[in-house]
Amino acid sequence: MYQLSMGLAYFRANTHLKSSTFELFFRKPPFGGEFCVFAGLDQVMSHLANFGFTESQLQYIRELLPEADDGFINYLRNLSCSSLTVTSALPGSLVFPRVPLITVSGPLGLCQLLETTLLTLINYPTLIATNATRFRLAAGPSPTLLEFGLRRAQGPDGGCSASKYAILGGFDGTSNVTAGWIERGLKVSGTMAHSYVMSFRGWEGYGGAEDFATEVREVRDVKWPGTNEGELRAFVEYAQCFPKGFLALVDTYDTMGGVYNFCSVAVAMGRKGLKPVGVRLDSGDLAYLSRECRRVFNEFKASYPALEFWDGLQIVVSNDINEEVLVALGKQEHCITAYGIGTNLVTCQAQPALGCVYKLVEVEGEPRIKLSQDIEKVLIPGRKRCYRLIGSDGSPLLDLMIMEDEAPPTPGTRILARHPFEEQKRCFVTPTSVVPLTTVVWKDGAPQIPYPTVEDGRRRREEEVEKCREDHLRTHNPTPYKVSVSHGLYKFLHKIWLEEAPVVELS
Amino acid sequence: MYQLSMGLAYFRANTHLKSSTFELFFRKPPFGGEFCVFAGLDQVMSHLANFGFTESQLQYIRELLPEADDGFINYLRNLSCSSLTVTSALPGSLVFPRVPLITVSGPLGLCQLLETTLLTLINYPTLIATNATRFRLAAGPSPTLLEFGLRRAQGPDGGCSASKYAILGGFDGTSNVTAGWIERGLKVSGTMAHSYVMSFRGWEGYGGAEDFATEVREVRDVKWPGTNEGELRAFVEYAQCFPKGFLALVDTYDTMGGVYNFCSVAVAMGRKGLKPVGVRLDSGDLAYLSRECRRVFNEFKASYPALEFWDGLQIVVSNDINEEVLVALGKQEHCITAYGIGTNLVTCQAQPALGCVYKLVEVEGEPRIKLSQDIEKVLIPGRKRCYRLIGSDGSPLLDLMIMEDEAPPTPGTRILARHPFEEQKRCFVTPTSVVPLTTVVWKDGAPQIPYPTVEDGRRRREEEVEKCREDHLRTHNPTPYKVSVSHGLYKFLHKIWLEEAPVVELS
Repeated sequence: MYQLSMGLAYFRANTHLKSSTFELFFRKPPFGGEFCVFAGLDQVMSHLANFGFTESQLQYIRELLPEADDGFINYLRNLSCSSLTVTSALPGSLVFPRVPLITVSGPLGLCQLLETTLLTLINYPTLIATNATRFRLAAGPSPTLLEFGLRRAQGPDGGCSASKYAILGGFDGTSNVTAGWIERGLKVSGTMAHSYVMSFRGWEGYGGAEDFATEVREVRDVKWPGTNEGELRAFVEYAQCFPKGFLALVDTYDTMGGVYNFCSVAVAMGRKGLKPVGVRLDSGDLAYLSRECRRVFNEFKASYPALEFWDGLQIVVSNDINEEVLVALGKQEHCITAYGIGTNLVTCQAQPALGCVYKLVEVEGEPRIKLSQDIEKVLIPGRKRCYRLIGSDGSPLLDLMIMEDEAPPTPGTRILARHPFEEQKRCFVTPTSVVPLTTVVWKDGAPQIPYPTVEDGRRRREEEVEKCREDHLRTHNPTPYKVSVSHGLYKFLHKIWLEEAPVVELS
Repeated sequence: MYQLSMGLAYFRANTHLKSSTFELFFRKPPFGGEFCVFAGLDQVMSHLANFGFTESQLQYIRELLPEADDGFINYLRNLSCSSLTVTSALPGSLVFPRVPLITVSGPLGLCQLLETTLLTLINYPTLIATNATRFRLAAGPSPTLLEFGLRRAQGPDGGCSASKYAILGGFDGTSNVTAGWIERGLKVSGTMAHSYVMSFRGWEGYGGAEDFATEVREVRDVKWPGTNEGELRAFVEYAQCFPKGFLALVDTYDTMGGVYNFCSVAVAMGRKGLKPVGVRLDSGDLAYLSRECRRVFNEFKASYPALEFWDGLQIVVSNDINEEVLVALGKQEHCITAYGIGTNLVTCQAQPALGCVYKLVEVEGEPRIKLSQDIEKVLIPGRKRCYRLIGSDGSPLLDLMIMEDEAPPTPGTRILARHPFEEQKRCFVTPTSVVPLTTVVWKDGAPQIPYPTVEDGRRRREEEVEKCREDHLRTHNPTPYKVSVSHGLYKFLHKIWLEEAPVVELS
């Protein structure tokens, strides 16, 4: 409603067509870290392409804004994003505070109307991709990470965004079928839950293969005759239904009993030439229980050495896993091969919102500044260009913002880079290479790059994480990454600041 | 994917048509409180009415589940919710741990398929309605509460759900136009943001009424000639565009300068018989600045006593407000009349997920139990009926669950109510009245109640909060509210528990 009210006020003041530039950026990285992984550009590009108001929406806007006349409604009716130029970071990029992620240039009224939508479409995807990247860094490269969060997500499309951008951030798959249906190519997986196991009691009405069931029971009776019979039946049914996908949830009644039930079914499968997948633990001390699982697998391996799958069985764990749990598990001995992570990933428990803002920095070529008593909230005025300066070892040294008419930094040339606000923080830097941080993604009413896919983003994130110094990425107390301005931009910022800031008169 | 995998396994085991009952409930209230405000039933009813798979979805399911044969796909193709009976709490009800919010009875396979969707459609709406209710309790009944969170929401539909269920929980309006467009009747409001103010510099190109601008500047020059000229121009333009809706954002450059600019415009408006609305503060010490605003309003009132609006001017504040800030402001002197609350409301910063679960409690009339080493996670088996027992002063005494074949509690009759797990926690209770906690909302393929509106929920919440003892609702250390089982259900639960729990053999 803010954007529509302001849109009308611009229209009335006849400033709606003035050329303007807005920047979308964040001030503080989430989760106590130093970085974000940029995501959501695909949604933004799709919004730019489809932007417009239907007649029914225009009618509703008339009701909300009785001050709106036919002229304004007609203006909205004919509005499209053909007059915008949008530059952006690319999905999967490591991005840092205050550097514009998206820059929107075009008529003031139109640029203003996009504010809330662009923020919504970037804030959550970037937050999720960043969270997933941190989970991946905490878990290390080997384990499989599966996103299980739809049931606790903040709305169904929140859940679908979470699935997609968690995979961009380094997860391997999701249990969310709708996400996979919308975004083909996402790996979708899921096995059984407690209700499935609980739905069976004993063998009454069993209609599966009798010899298979008999064999399973015989194996079980040798090893641990007291296991839950309904659970054993549930596993036998599931194994016959999914001969290539038998992953058993073992903690409905008693975890170790469940593991013996699983192994009994596994033996009978193995004798038919089938390969079971493994077990899932959803409660208890996961490190300890995973070791116990492995111990039982080894016990069965000793008894049934002809079956070759024992060492390869998966031990999937779930139950309120977050970054801290992953870090803690990393310090313990465990035999976990995969994690199912839901609530804490998708709702970003540690910080459920990213604070991207969308700020006007220039009107008709004139820079704009917003002041604040909180220095971090002062805006760096004017349109800028942004570069990542790379050192001789290939890792980024710092990000540099310059004014649009300044000469870009060049490899091998020494320049002064300054903290935007703190006078004494400055350094000389001689980059080995220089990478522009933004790309024109939308111009003349058309996308200027192919729509970014999840796979593109995933690959870029892997490359950038690989090149970045580890201490910038670490979970606790990461080394600050420098985001600097050129000496020219520094002087310009402070000149404008002095001009606009009122001098208080005390008496 | 879990639900589809299990659905196929049930189908293969030929148990998919067995009659079953699932309960949806939470174990622990969010935000350190004792209650939730139930919400989301409208979405659930709409899902039940529209449940089904398209051919393209069925094709995708075939790809995901190569084990699925034509029989299963046909089963899915013909599936509808006509065979279900669903009982539910009504939106806006105060609800407590372990009491079923929704009970779904019908064929096992179908009931299972609904799990994730029902959880998604209840968890977040109930979390938001609860959060909003807590914000309302912390703010007290008088101030206007506005939801401003779309830009930080976890996805666009998360944002729209937040707007709707925040209003159910006691907010007065939202800035989210799409939410209002989808759910007519929500009050939508919004004024100006910093970019609007920043877009103006001085008076060049001013095309509004000259006399109005001149008068504003004259008033301003008497009071505080040094205020920001671009801001003054922005206010003059806005006041002419919105003669009935002039609410000015005053902190773009200097808050008190902004207040003087607002008042100067207000005087000129008043002389034309118009009534300005007030100011918004978006930074700084909100309690202090609100008092300063009121002081300046009073100063202008002394100078321009003929204008009658000074006492009624609104002081709206925003900027990272959460429940704690509201509680803290309640203890200070301030002149705030309205709060704009975004991030912390819609993303539920204090706890971003509600942990509702959906559990199988009965198959073909036989109760099912899930055990756990964590007692709180043990399931209360079997289908039940639930009642709220009301005391002589009209406030709830406790919620009581009984087995389906037990006699319901009756007013004036003394009964024993027991804690489900802790033997020594029990009480006698003689209710003055007894209210069933659930209503049949879906049966024979059709809704059994009118679709619940936001207004219905809002009214019910108000009534129930009004009746509830304050100490159950308070922010810090609330008194636990008793959720009990009948003596019969207690004995039944513990009998089944003993039957299913394995006796460990130590050696």
